[in-house]
Amino acid sequence: MKHTISVLVENKFGALNRVAAMFSARGFNLESIAIGETEDPGISRMTIVTRGDDKIIGQIVKQLNRLIDTLKVVDLTDALKIERELALISIGYHKSNRSEIISLCEIFKANVIDITPKAITVEIVGTPDKIESAIKIFLPFGIREIARSGVVALSRNEPVIVKTSKETNGTLTT
Amino acid sequence: MKHTISVLVENKFGALNRVAAMFSARGFNLESIAIGETEDPGISRMTIVTRGDDKIIGQIVKQLNRLIDTLKVVDLTDALKIERELALISIGYHKSNRSEIISLCEIFKANVIDITPKAITVEIVGTPDKIESAIKIFLPFGIREIARSGVVALSRNEPVIVKTSKETNGTLTT
Repeated sequence: MKHTISVLVENKFGALNRVAAMFSARGFNLESIAIGETEDPGISRMTIVTRGDDKIIGQIVKQLNRLIDTLKVVDLTDALKIERELALISIGYHKSNRSEIISLCEIFKANVIDITPKAITVEIVGTPDKIESAIKIFLPFGIREIARSGVVALSRNEPVIVKTSKETNGTLTT
Repeated sequence: MKHTISVLVENKFGALNRVAAMFSARGFNLESIAIGETEDPGISRMTIVTRGDDKIIGQIVKQLNRLIDTLKVVDLTDALKIERELALISIGYHKSNRSEIISLCEIFKANVIDITPKAITVEIVGTPDKIESAIKIFLPFGIREIARSGVVALSRNEPVIVKTSKETNGTLTT
């Protein structure tokens, strides 16, 4: 089963490397990993998408908690959450179908961010399902390139306040 | 210097792990790594942001090319490119400043995607600079949580067509 795990880490050189190395060393699958600074420049948040049964996910959460930079690990899978993904899609066009493509962009609330004589590039944000739908709709026009961000997620409940360096939340942690 | 590298890989189980493991093993810094399927479900694209001098970046490109799943590596740093990042930002509000926050969202073209009695959550897409500016503007209201995707990038030149499994582009490759 697919799991979305949110991890707060100290924003130190190599923090992402250490998480990635742990996943590699333990043989846990990394489906995607998104990272960025939080409102506190000393803290970064990672959104990790991984797969496994409850036992594997329990091990992943435990190992994440053990990493030196980790402040907080939350398995968002069964939580009320907001999940979004960003995709840049470059679509080939002709004079004859350009307006049709632009109409479709409006339906998907996709912004046209670049246009050349041959291609329209759009940015589109949504749940992974919405991104998949958009790709299917644009495919017949000829997609030239796609870059996707992987999933970014926040809990819809009260924010996770980091109080101690090893405090954890949820039932799957050590 | 910060470098943005785009990598096309075969969409095989563990492809992200292998890239992450290589960065760890060689001691290369991973600043962010975004991954997603392309228009061809057999191929994924990674956008990697890393730091290093020309020698280090040359080594990274070389090592990426050597990985078994790699189809193509392009250093986009000096290329004409489109770079975007996604951020979810949850902002605390009161009745008295809610409309001010919503006006600021309009300026940043940020979409309000959730609202509770205490917080407004917005999705915002832009260059990393734009995301930083938005965070600075929302900070005085009280940011509760942020999740960012890291950079996603596409070249503005002709698309990278994958012809052979080890074909490479640019001057920094093997």
